[in-house]
Amino acid sequence: MSTLAPIKITGNTRVYAIIADPVAQVRTPEVLNEYFRTRGIDAVLVPIHVAPDGLESVLAGFRHMKNMGGFVVTVPHKTAVARLCDELGPAGRVIGSVNAVRRTADGRFVGDMFDGAGFVTGLRAQGHDPKGLRILLVGAGGAASAIAFALAQAGVAALTISNRTRAKAQAVAAMVKQSFPLAIVQTGEPDPKGYDLVVNATSLGMKPSDPLPIDTERLEPATVVAEIIMKPEVTALLAKAIEKGCVVHHGRHMLDEQVRLMTGFMLASE
Amino acid sequence: MSTLAPIKITGNTRVYAIIADPVAQVRTPEVLNEYFRTRGIDAVLVPIHVAPDGLESVLAGFRHMKNMGGFVVTVPHKTAVARLCDELGPAGRVIGSVNAVRRTADGRFVGDMFDGAGFVTGLRAQGHDPKGLRILLVGAGGAASAIAFALAQAGVAALTISNRTRAKAQAVAAMVKQSFPLAIVQTGEPDPKGYDLVVNATSLGMKPSDPLPIDTERLEPATVVAEIIMKPEVTALLAKAIEKGCVVHHGRHMLDEQVRLMTGFMLASE
Repeated sequence: MSTLAPIKITGNTRVYAIIADPVAQVRTPEVLNEYFRTRGIDAVLVPIHVAPDGLESVLAGFRHMKNMGGFVVTVPHKTAVARLCDELGPAGRVIGSVNAVRRTADGRFVGDMFDGAGFVTGLRAQGHDPKGLRILLVGAGGAASAIAFALAQAGVAALTISNRTRAKAQAVAAMVKQSFPLAIVQTGEPDPKGYDLVVNATSLGMKPSDPLPIDTERLEPATVVAEIIMKPEVTALLAKAIEKGCVVHHGRHMLDEQVRLMTGFMLASE
Repeated sequence: MSTLAPIKITGNTRVYAIIADPVAQVRTPEVLNEYFRTRGIDAVLVPIHVAPDGLESVLAGFRHMKNMGGFVVTVPHKTAVARLCDELGPAGRVIGSVNAVRRTADGRFVGDMFDGAGFVTGLRAQGHDPKGLRILLVGAGGAASAIAFALAQAGVAALTISNRTRAKAQAVAAMVKQSFPLAIVQTGEPDPKGYDLVVNATSLGMKPSDPLPIDTERLEPATVVAEIIMKPEVTALLAKAIEKGCVVHHGRHMLDEQVRLMTGFMLASE
């Protein structure tokens, strides 16, 4: 909206950061500063470019910045920052990585991982409550782990994790079982037949030359197909799914909710 | 101007800071962000509240922030930061304190002190070149030291430093003589008679109850009277000077030039 006041930074403004390496590509400063501005929150988020060998020093410095409220964490720091936090939320603890850290008034770091919660909240916002659904999740990296955890937490009926390297899928399944011993979690093939929801949590689809993450020939129209890839908005997988008559769910829904969850977490008073 | 674009922070934006304790009162974020914005410089300056016991950690963190360009230093950190710099400019080296630090691409800190240069540049901008003038400088604190150094560097004819505690005035005079052995620098009474320029570099005049820093009864109309106090804009000293028919020089001229000099210094490529 053109009537919004510009960002006004004074000596009273609280400071937030996003740490990344590289940092030029991150969109968080634009998204979160817009969030602060539209809500009249006197805060600013700045990008901080830090390499892995400087991470500990930068975090030690953050501890002593009394007007710092917290920071967003992205590649390649999510796992290392989890180890440097004083306290972790449930998802962060289980997955062993965080993407948002709140700095308390006494300089302690409380971290948590919102990739999975963002995905599930985004699903619900689009009318796809995962509770009771049979779900095929493709991928076993950081995002897939977080989504697997959040889906189990949301009470899915059954979750199949499919990954090229089967051992990684098994590790994710074991992690989920440890937190939710009653959940039905298994590993399997990327065959979408018979599932209510199929989630692509791999990076396949970012490049036009990527193979499809699942066997789309076996997609049924009743299956909802979800992406976490944001660019392109319509991946080859989603295009195929639309062709098959499936309802599709875009990557940006996850990001939108993630931003809200991370910001609420960082802004929360102790 | 209303046509200016608001601050737009992206992953490419360079980050600057001002470190202070407390920090709420600092005006530098407003002034420097306006400077960046009007010139289309993709940079942002944020306030960082750090206590003396956290200073070393914060600076160690800054070294590893690859997109940090530098920082402004204010109370109470000017002397401590000078000790933590890798390299000091001439004024910073002599005075032993800095108010601006440039971070080089390899994480080194180059600091310098612009209080004095800002004052002298401000004088010149108002048509008062101190070269060849007889000057009475009142005060012997950090700002007075910086101004004494810069006035000597500017080639004044003679400089008298007056301070309640004479020993401090003598220390400042000795510091100036060490850098400019040929300069005529002495200590003396706060008697303005016979000087071309009188400078108040004490804080006397900020409060209405403060005594006058000089014996204004002995002010002559040909003497220019300068302040470094910004609020009130017309101190009791300046009001008296105007009454006596003197030309006066306001505190804000120093600040305006200081900002330009510090920003130019921090933005300079190596």
